[in-house]
Amino acid sequence: MAKRLDHGSFVPLYHQLKEILKEKIESGEWSPGEKIPSENEFRNDYEISRNTVKKALDDLVQEGFLRRIKGKGTFVSKPKFEQSLTGFYSFSKVMEKRGMKPKDLIISIETTRAKRSIAKQLQIGEEEEVIALRRLRKANDEPIILETSYIPKKLIPGLSREQLENYSLYDLMEKEFGIIVTKAKEIFEPVLIRDYESKYLEVQEGYPALLLDRTARNKEGLPVEFCRSIVRGDRCRFYTELM
Amino acid sequence: MAKRLDHGSFVPLYHQLKEILKEKIESGEWSPGEKIPSENEFRNDYEISRNTVKKALDDLVQEGFLRRIKGKGTFVSKPKFEQSLTGFYSFSKVMEKRGMKPKDLIISIETTRAKRSIAKQLQIGEEEEVIALRRLRKANDEPIILETSYIPKKLIPGLSREQLENYSLYDLMEKEFGIIVTKAKEIFEPVLIRDYESKYLEVQEGYPALLLDRTARNKEGLPVEFCRSIVRGDRCRFYTELM
Repeated sequence: MAKRLDHGSFVPLYHQLKEILKEKIESGEWSPGEKIPSENEFRNDYEISRNTVKKALDDLVQEGFLRRIKGKGTFVSKPKFEQSLTGFYSFSKVMEKRGMKPKDLIISIETTRAKRSIAKQLQIGEEEEVIALRRLRKANDEPIILETSYIPKKLIPGLSREQLENYSLYDLMEKEFGIIVTKAKEIFEPVLIRDYESKYLEVQEGYPALLLDRTARNKEGLPVEFCRSIVRGDRCRFYTELM
Repeated sequence: MAKRLDHGSFVPLYHQLKEILKEKIESGEWSPGEKIPSENEFRNDYEISRNTVKKALDDLVQEGFLRRIKGKGTFVSKPKFEQSLTGFYSFSKVMEKRGMKPKDLIISIETTRAKRSIAKQLQIGEEEEVIALRRLRKANDEPIILETSYIPKKLIPGLSREQLENYSLYDLMEKEFGIIVTKAKEIFEPVLIRDYESKYLEVQEGYPALLLDRTARNKEGLPVEFCRSIVRGDRCRFYTELM
């Protein structure tokens, strides 16, 4: 028996279908990992075109609600990682608390000259030397965040892969160089994944992501790190509690 | 004289150009409202193809850094609205503080039955009646946020356009119905603008946006409102201060 979509509504049919499916996921009627009906079943059940079904499913894949596995079908995704924005946090610690195995891939550690915008954030001169640390942060082998930290070279003479494999960046800054991060400002805005980032993050270009800029300061208020991250929007969401 | 892009780099040329232009905007070398050089000038200056220039500019338009005006050229955008996430806020008050003229367009006020996911957020029974208030929130006549508030009908018998034109929703809830919002949880994730929303928000489908879900509670901890907003990513960014 055909289920009802409202063909007379100004809300497009694919959008109506999308809302129905999202509802099934958000309410828990469909569980994470569950296989959902085939495109043909949706076509028959709702009496709609293949295109309408495809558009609704594509959107839900892109937004991280569904996942396609080649030759197997379409499945409900695991819930997104939730990250509080009201306190300091460490990616590794958040993941561990959730029972995930965090792992960093160090892409590069370079000494470079600060571009104007980064120099401004770090309150140093343009062209002053900074250490640029680029990492891909994974949870259970799934890439989640691509991030680049910039630290004034005058604060830290160098960083080695070995050190970073054993300590968090902030622990290392404190332990080795006496730099204690006590506050930070984070600015975030929604962006699209670019081809450049999509290779690392293993999602398609054009998928939604969060651009996160953090400026971390020591207790004197001096900027000690500027970090720009791209966070996968299909795998993460953020929350804050207001009082 | 040709400026240098690194043709041997693994970073695509359009991405290199984009970074250079972004740098000019972020550093203030180019001011808001300023007209930038034409595509042809970039082609000649950087010795790159029309496609490369176009892709870089398209990205920057999509991310809200640049704005195209038909027949006039491409201009540096006004800075994005910045919104703190660490305290309660009212869209109208934030806009007024910034010298903008806030204006709400009330799209609809309906009594409807709660879908399962909304009932869950409001801790009411499925199919219980809720008031759904859909608004388009503008600043200086520019649409910024498309939002739908759901309030249990048992808490509020009705809302009129006249009331909403004169008071903020929370002021009204307090003044007319004795409901005082004392805390809220907000969850946000990056999404893409859909055709459905793009008409109201006057941006193209596929542009980045922030989906913001707020559950507001009274001092007894009872949910009194669930609100889902789509915020234009090309016009807004959010920040939080961590201590």
